[in-house]
Amino acid sequence: MHLKKMALIVEYDGARYHGFQLQAGLPTIQGELEQAIGSLTGESLRVTCASRTDSGVSAAGQVVSFRTESQHPPETFVRALNYHLPDDIAVLEALEIPMDYDVRTKAYGREYQYLLLNRRAPSPIMRSRTHWVPVALDLEAMNKAASLLLGTHDFSPFAGPDLLPGIRTTKTLTHSALNRDGHIISFDVAGESFLHQQVRRMVGAILEVGLGKVTLDDFERVRDCGKRGAAGPTLPPNGLTLLEVRYRDIRKALQDQEMSLVGSVS
Amino acid sequence: MHLKKMALIVEYDGARYHGFQLQAGLPTIQGELEQAIGSLTGESLRVTCASRTDSGVSAAGQVVSFRTESQHPPETFVRALNYHLPDDIAVLEALEIPMDYDVRTKAYGREYQYLLLNRRAPSPIMRSRTHWVPVALDLEAMNKAASLLLGTHDFSPFAGPDLLPGIRTTKTLTHSALNRDGHIISFDVAGESFLHQQVRRMVGAILEVGLGKVTLDDFERVRDCGKRGAAGPTLPPNGLTLLEVRYRDIRKALQDQEMSLVGSVS
Repeated sequence: MHLKKMALIVEYDGARYHGFQLQAGLPTIQGELEQAIGSLTGESLRVTCASRTDSGVSAAGQVVSFRTESQHPPETFVRALNYHLPDDIAVLEALEIPMDYDVRTKAYGREYQYLLLNRRAPSPIMRSRTHWVPVALDLEAMNKAASLLLGTHDFSPFAGPDLLPGIRTTKTLTHSALNRDGHIISFDVAGESFLHQQVRRMVGAILEVGLGKVTLDDFERVRDCGKRGAAGPTLPPNGLTLLEVRYRDIRKALQDQEMSLVGSVS
Repeated sequence: MHLKKMALIVEYDGARYHGFQLQAGLPTIQGELEQAIGSLTGESLRVTCASRTDSGVSAAGQVVSFRTESQHPPETFVRALNYHLPDDIAVLEALEIPMDYDVRTKAYGREYQYLLLNRRAPSPIMRSRTHWVPVALDLEAMNKAASLLLGTHDFSPFAGPDLLPGIRTTKTLTHSALNRDGHIISFDVAGESFLHQQVRRMVGAILEVGLGKVTLDDFERVRDCGKRGAAGPTLPPNGLTLLEVRYRDIRKALQDQEMSLVGSVS
């Protein structure tokens, strides 16, 4: 049989899952995807992802890939997988990619968003997607802190406990900024790749600045101290969403597909 | 003891509830509020609301009132009730109002929002708050239909089965329009008051126009036919949120409170 490689863009609400990566006996995104693909193709296969998300973290544009002998067209993968998947995971797009294309190493950027709810009262409607901060924040200082993370730094102070030995901790952030829309403050950050828990620790450290607990000078000092896990705290996972994984070569194909999804709307 | 009357602005995620109104043995917003207030004040009391919401409908700004002998300041009501309430219901504001102030009859306007998700794939992240429409829509025709509902009409074609005899079906809409933001289309509508299921039937009828199943002429004919329940279909409740209840007299007090909620943010 002819083997081919498929990529999927996947959205999920991570609340119910122990993260992306397969764990025996626990609900995971990978486990659900492999089961749904197996139901469609009859194959027992492995799925790999572009950006491993932690327990409770959501994704609007995770990218995964797998090898299959199935000859279904991409459109059938979208429809059939969404039929088999639980309603907190959905396939947005499917496309065939070259057999040697690695969706993890080929990605040149990842974009994450963390949402804070900043008002005195909690929000039942937004509670599952935001971290609640019921006190006044200095957004200007927070934005200065966010901009101090731009560029290339050794981000080991923002690394979580799962940092594997030998992992390169020097990373480059191309975007790091906060925006307020009513009671919601979003922290939007993009870079080539991130360390485990890095985004949740960065926004945790920025929040300390907004609360007046840490000065910008101290924030910068911790950023440069090189000590693993020195920055934080790590904010809860429910506020975090992987928005997008960026590719130079398959990106255009993905975008072209997306444009054709919903017909012309006047 | 001195009896006083309190108003609360309440937000809730209606997913788990059989609507606002008390029903024996079923979870309702009214039931949860009365239990939480009882836990705080030790009183067994009744709560009334400005706009009764159906099973599964959410609210960002429901207004309720109750009489109490409790001498707690409004701020204590907010904090203590949020402690006692489940996390899908929250009190945003509390204020004392005149004893003869009826939050239902004094409201001069109600604002509702219905959210559609318009893209081929479902959205795990937005699934609880949107009604999914996976085909192309003619948004221009939908907006024309929405504007045909503006002004004063006999809305009985848009009334649900629970229309009580003697209820006035002639109502005035002051706002009725659709907006697209990416894949989300919001139908925003405001009027003095609404019939049971009216908003969900209006957006259902507008959607039929957007799908090309009903012409604008036919839409107008059904609007004017005077036949109960002739328009629709009734879209599911999870897309609907009561955004705001409007008052002329206590409005300013409410707004002033809101401004002081979160301190100055630069």
